[in-house]
Amino acid sequence: MHFPGMPAPLARVVEMLSSLPGVGPKTAMRMGLNLLTRPAGDAAALAQALECLHEQVGFCPVCGCFSEQGHCHFCDDPSRDAATLCVVEQPVDVLMMERGHGYRGSYHVLLGRLSPVDGVGPEQLRLASLDQRMKQGINEIILATSATVDGEATAHYLANRYQHAGVSVSRISRGVPEGGELEYLDEHTLSRALDQRVSWQHHA
Amino acid sequence: MHFPGMPAPLARVVEMLSSLPGVGPKTAMRMGLNLLTRPAGDAAALAQALECLHEQVGFCPVCGCFSEQGHCHFCDDPSRDAATLCVVEQPVDVLMMERGHGYRGSYHVLLGRLSPVDGVGPEQLRLASLDQRMKQGINEIILATSATVDGEATAHYLANRYQHAGVSVSRISRGVPEGGELEYLDEHTLSRALDQRVSWQHHA
Ligand SMILES: [Zn+2]
Ligand SMILES: [Zn+2]
Repeated sequence: MHFPGMPAPLARVVEMLSSLPGVGPKTAMRMGLNLLTRPAGDAAALAQALECLHEQVGFCPVCGCFSEQGHCHFCDDPSRDAATLCVVEQPVDVLMMERGHGYRGSYHVLLGRLSPVDGVGPEQLRLASLDQRMKQGINEIILATSATVDGEATAHYLANRYQHAGVSVSRISRGVPEGGELEYLDEHTLSRALDQRVSWQHHA
Repeated sequence: MHFPGMPAPLARVVEMLSSLPGVGPKTAMRMGLNLLTRPAGDAAALAQALECLHEQVGFCPVCGCFSEQGHCHFCDDPSRDAATLCVVEQPVDVLMMERGHGYRGSYHVLLGRLSPVDGVGPEQLRLASLDQRMKQGINEIILATSATVDGEATAHYLANRYQHAGVSVSRISRGVPEGGELEYLDEHTLSRALDQRVSWQHHA
């Protein structure tokens, strides 16, 4: 969206905002103008929050979810069942699972999924730490990778890798629509998919 | 939108983004996560652009529109008709008018509109500089304040103030929907409203 006469510093903000998901050029323009007409402190506060974002938010060394420092909120919670592991692709998937409020086990984030096309093999996923956790008294591993072709292949790979390790392997149910990314699901669908998870034998 | 276990620095960014117009909590969440998973340089670049915004964007001393320094893009353009003044409420309204590409005159931004409820009287608007410009060979003044009650009252006030100054006073046509803010109009409606402007006598 070109606005003749728009000052370059404003155009820069608008352009960067419109590169974000869900933000069209008109919304970005409205956001930029809103920031410009609000007190300067508002834009400065947002700027500072953005500066801190990568600096202050890291990943939990155990599960791989977001963490401010050291262990995350979930790994630090003694009331959660450490013997049940829900394996997801991305940190955001953990936050999405939590919105259902039904799950009280632990998580493991792969930081990706197998993708021959993109050259992502098992060695690119957080599997070494998962292998290690599997030796520490895990009873059940819930495969909550996405219902995409790659997510499904990743679930198959993990099932094969761990089904003889004396743990129960399950897959979140097919309530997740085909091709669906966990990130865009409503909490009820995700809750149901978790409740109705089926043993890997029945799934495959 | 509460996400248990979401790191505070991420929550801060999401909260600030959702205070912007057109950004719901879900979009803000997606934007924040997108920034977190993109290279740190992207968030830093947006932060820097926001820091510069108020510092580098000011107002034109002549017309009151946005300006990086000194006169704005429009006042500096010798090809524009300096004898025709389009009077608008806000700098953003100038950018919106320009999207129609039909107007080649000059602008004057009031930086507000009369509003008894909010205690905005003539002395709060940029009228001293408008009085001064009116003495410098203006042929026509186009009242392009919004079609709200206050915008209409402002147009009436300006018409009374200048209609005996030997200039033609006109009002953008009623193509602008009742209660409409210029900022949210499509360019065609605004173009037509400008083309079909009627002399103040016929308007009132
Ligand atoms: Zn953790
Ligand atoms: Zn100007």
